[in-house]
Order: sequence, then structure tokens, then C-alpha cells
Amino acid sequence: MAGGARQFVTVDGAFPLHRGGVLSRPTIAYETWGEPNRARDNAVLVFTGLSPSAHAASSPEDPAPGWWEEVIGPGRPIDTRRFFVICVNSLGSCFGSTGPASRNPETGEIYRRSFPVLSLEDVARGGQEVLRHLGVESLYATVGPSMGGMTALAFEILFPGRSEGLMIISSATRSLPFATALRSLQREMIRRDRNWKEGDYTPGALPLTGMRLARKLGMITYRSAEEWRGRFGRERSCEECETGDPFAHSFEIEAYLEHHANKFTGQFDPNCYLYLSRASDLFDVADHGASVEAGLARIQSKRVCVIGVATDILYPLHQQQELAEQLQQPGREVQFVELPSIQGHDSFLVDMDNFRPAIAAFFSR
Amino acid sequence: MAGGARQFVTVDGAFPLHRGGVLSRPTIAYETWGEPNRARDNAVLVFTGLSPSAHAASSPEDPAPGWWEEVIGPGRPIDTRRFFVICVNSLGSCFGSTGPASRNPETGEIYRRSFPVLSLEDVARGGQEVLRHLGVESLYATVGPSMGGMTALAFEILFPGRSEGLMIISSATRSLPFATALRSLQREMIRRDRNWKEGDYTPGALPLTGMRLARKLGMITYRSAEEWRGRFGRERSCEECETGDPFAHSFEIEAYLEHHANKFTGQFDPNCYLYLSRASDLFDVADHGASVEAGLARIQSKRVCVIGVATDILYPLHQQQELAEQLQQPGREVQFVELPSIQGHDSFLVDMDNFRPAIAAFFSR
Repeated sequence: MAGGARQFVTVDGAFPLHRGGVLSRPTIAYETWGEPNRARDNAVLVFTGLSPSAHAASSPEDPAPGWWEEVIGPGRPIDTRRFFVICVNSLGSCFGSTGPASRNPETGEIYRRSFPVLSLEDVARGGQEVLRHLGVESLYATVGPSMGGMTALAFEILFPGRSEGLMIISSATRSLPFATALRSLQREMIRRDRNWKEGDYTPGALPLTGMRLARKLGMITYRSAEEWRGRFGRERSCEECETGDPFAHSFEIEAYLEHHANKFTGQFDPNCYLYLSRASDLFDVADHGASVEAGLARIQSKRVCVIGVATDILYPLHQQQELAEQLQQPGREVQFVELPSIQGHDSFLVDMDNFRPAIAAFFSR
Repeated sequence: MAGGARQFVTVDGAFPLHRGGVLSRPTIAYETWGEPNRARDNAVLVFTGLSPSAHAASSPEDPAPGWWEEVIGPGRPIDTRRFFVICVNSLGSCFGSTGPASRNPETGEIYRRSFPVLSLEDVARGGQEVLRHLGVESLYATVGPSMGGMTALAFEILFPGRSEGLMIISSATRSLPFATALRSLQREMIRRDRNWKEGDYTPGALPLTGMRLARKLGMITYRSAEEWRGRFGRERSCEECETGDPFAHSFEIEAYLEHHANKFTGQFDPNCYLYLSRASDLFDVADHGASVEAGLARIQSKRVCVIGVATDILYPLHQQQELAEQLQQPGREVQFVELPSIQGHDSFLVDMDNFRPAIAAFFSR
């Protein structure tokens, strides 16, 4: 199989969801890079954060840079000359996988809010559907940053013994109330936009204001005060300084947020955003046992690497330290890596000088 | 003069503002507690954070608890048996002082967005108008938490030598981009509310949704992840858990934010909030010299105490450490106090067990 651009697997029949409800014949989009080896033990399954597509890296079929371009590819930390890499677009998302913006084949209508409550366990099972389709029965490693890390934990718990290795980056066993508050407020910004209309917005009147506000808050939580202090300080973007409007976006940081929020808005379906955001809040490893520890005890991977950064306010470092400690058990090698990145939660996307070697070390054995 | 409830001073004539524009005969509301002593050297001037009124403590005339009830009063850290305490409602606010919600005496119309750009220097000068009215020429100390700390710095810079002591709590010489981003987004939430109408909202149709969202974001930034982790964890408020609405506020932290945001909304005028919020972003000690250091060099207080807490994400501790270092000079006693409060920026309002003794130590001499 050639590495390629977006491919699809459609589940044959009913797909019951973790918290109730059933999807009929959902589709999961994915991309792959590299080739399965003869022993069929070189597959790496990558789950994504909330907003990316399956396009983690470029390929001849889709030369656009992927969201983890510097991590996945020939000669890259997850070396596609050696590994067969599979990245899955989350169930519930809007980049080819079935989600609230998809049409329900039973009714012919777009799901919108009739989509059942989404859980990261469902996203993990979407990944398993892709593996089944590809005939991949064992994995060299499962990898997930951010929400993808929670999904990777769900996958390991639901399908124990499938994956030799596990790499969790800037993630957690469950959300703490500070992160939940921030996500809840983002959802409320979208839901309060009069164009949201309880999810029944039209293509010509999307809740763009709510999405823009939510994205700005997202960006504030994804980066760090330390980074912005050095990068923006109190610089002014003077195109607007002199308008006399006391609320013009006159600081560079305001112009930066405006620019990036506008880039994002319109690319991501609002209902999909709401469902995936809520799934991140709902996820709790303790749902799979009497406690977080009991849930984690289901995981069978032999090699684990947990990576975090101290400037992450969304998934603070202590959550990743705890995860690494909770995963310790006889016969397992657990590595906890704290990287000195100042870009906060998003460091895994931007601080490649620190992340490349940390990821490469795990995959170079 | 008896300690009393709200009093007023109205400036006789024009009051030019720091960044241009003039107010005609503005009023400043204030409250006082205790009595001036014979030497007239026992006055303490308190500036407030963004949202409080001048009602910092109860009195026979207004027995409702004030926002700093445990700090100001007989036998309290700022002991009103010894000190003559004056708390000023900020110019631009809506609790008796002139602000965007007040009527312009020149036109008979409510100022709304015709109010000139507000600066904390103007708020400081409002305090000076109160002192002039009361015949207070020298102060035992000037005190300010949060935005009030920036206002206290402005006061000391504009009126050097007036105050023997200076206490700055959880504040800064200027806002960093992270804090500006958070405040800018709060303002945008209000301005994007269709009821805001460029400031021309009506009493029957206030931009309450924007205010509620802004207040929730404010609360997230005023407290700390650490506090909420211990206080709320992943507790559910089950009145809403079972409605089947995937976006119901089912976590305790969501219910908490909703409850407190609703309490605040309707109490504070939206335009006043916008102006004071922006004034906090605009303030920069470096506007009073070639640098922050040069601006601070104008301050003449002989005793300075700077208090901060490590869990404050809005005015991080390092800003207060820097302020204390920058204020060091021969002949001045500078004390920097780091308190182990876990309630973040708002600790000065709630963690009284730590704050009372720290404040009392400064005022007990």
C-alpha cells in the first residue's frame, strides 16, 4: 500500500456509542505513510488533538504540510522508512469522519444535535475500525498529543495488548476543573451566538462570532504567558492605535489573536467543535475501573513515554507526572520527559527543537 | 467627621483626562472610616480593583459587609481606631463616581462611548480630589490591590511625597500580553453582544449575555487551577446531568461559574466595565519616564510593601518581585511578601488567614 492522502473506512452496520445512542454505518477518515513490514509489527497509530485532520504529514498524494510535518516522514522522528504510520480523523470531527456535520444515512438529514453524546472511547473505537480495515493487529506504538493522548489511553484500555508502545504528550487521564471551565466557556460562546440556533445554523449564517471568541480563548489557553511576554511585550499594532476607538485592537497581542481566530473560523464545524470539546471534559480513565489507577491497570503496553511541558496550563505538568507514576508496573519501562518549552500546551506543534529529539529517542530503538 | 457611608465630591469645573478629552464637573464617590488625628498624618487612601465600590467595610451608616471587611475596621489590620481610612470609587465606575453610565452635564445625555479614553492616572487624580476636599495633605499610606495597585502607583507618581507608605497587592507596573489578551477577549464578548449596540444599550435590553461570558472568563482568571482542583474536582451537579443535553452545565465548576456570573451581571454597567478594563491594559509606569524604572523613580514613599501570590495568573508573582526590586533605593524600606495562597489573583479578597497578618504587619508600626 502506498502512503497516500485521505482514505476512508465505513463501518458495516451499527456502531453503538459509549454513552448510549447508535451511529449507522459511520465513516472514519485516515491517512497512512510508509509500508507495513513483513512481520506486520511496525504500525504506529496517531490520534489527534481536537481540531486537526488526519493530514499529519505531507505525501506525494497530498504535498501540503501536515500538522506534525516535522515529526512524521522519511528521516523524521517517526521515520516512515521504518514505520507504517496511520493517523485517524476523530469520529465527531468534520474532516472526512462522521460527525454532527454529517448526514445521518437513516434519515438523510444532517445529524447536528441529534448526534449522540460523543466520548473519546468512541473516537478510539473509530481508530480500531481503521486498523481492522487495514488488517493491522498489533502496533509498534500508539501516540497521542492533547485530546489525542486521552484517546490513546482510551484505545489502550479498550484494546489491551494491541500496542507494544504508548506515547502520551501534554495530556491527562481526565480533565481538571480549570480546563473544563475554559472549554465550557468556549462552548457557551458558540451556543450564545444567535446564529447557532440550537445547532440548526445554515451555511450562509454560521455562528462565526462565537467561533472566533472561542478560538481566541482556545489560543490563550494553548500558549503561555511567558512566550507572549517575550514575543509581544507591550508592542502596539499602530494601524488601529490612532482611530480614537478606545476598544480598537491596538496591542500586538490583540491583533495576533484576531488574525489567527479569523484563520480558524469557517474551517471547523461549530457543532463538531462542541461535541469534541465536551468529549474532552467527559473523558475519565476512572470510568474504566474503580479509580484512575484501576482504569490504567488495563493497559498492557510494555514501553511508555509521557511528555509534558511546565508552561502548559490546560494539561498541567503535574497531571503528566502523575500519569507516568500511575503507569509504573513490573515489566514495563516508563519514561517521563519534561521539556523546557515555553509555548505552553501547543509546544508539541511548534517547539520542534525540543520535541523532535524526545520523540525520536522513543522511536529509534 | 464621623465614619460614614457613601459621600461625594464634585470637581468644580473642567477635569482634563490623561489621554485627552475633558470631563465637566465629575463626581467622585468615597467612604471613610475612623477619624483624622490631630497631626493629620493617619490617613490611608485605598484604591479598588476593577469592580468594587467604595464600600470597603461596614459602618453604622451602612452595615452591609464591605469588599475588604476583614481588613478595614476597629481592631482589623488597617485599624480604624488608629487610621482615617478613605476608599475611593474609581472614576469611570458606576457606584457613584462619574463614568460612561453618568449623564454629561454639558449635554444632559448619558456619556456612553462619548466618555473620553479613561486612564488609571485619571482614577488616581479622582482620589486626589477626594483628599483635597477632605483637607488631607499627607497620607500614612496608599494601598491598592489589583487594578487599585496600578492606580496607587499612578497616584504616587503624579503626587510624589504625599504618602509615607505604599502597599501594592497582586498588581504590576503594567499589563503583560497574557493579561491583556484575557481582558481584550472579555471586552469583545460584551461588544459582540447584539444588545451592546455600540454602547447605546437600553436598560430593558442590556448586553447581559456578553457580561455573563466576560464575568466567567474573569472568574477563571481571578482564581487558580489548584484551588478548583481541590474544591470541585470532577464533581457533577446532577440536577442537569440527566437531561440528555450534551452541553448542559453538568460539572460543579460549570454550575459555580454560572451562579456567580449571574450574580454579577446587572450590577455593573457594561460600558463602565469596558472603560476600566481598557484602562488596566493601557496603564504603563514607563509612560512617566524613559522606562519603568524612570517612572518608578518619581515615587517618594519611604516604606513600601509589595504582596503577591504564586497562583496569580493575571498579575504573576514575578511582576511583583520585579516591582519590589525596582523600588529599592537608599533610604527606603522595601518589603516583598509572597503569600502561599492558592486562590490566585483574588486571594486578597478571600484568603484572609494569610492576608490579614501580612497587612497588619505593615500597619502595626
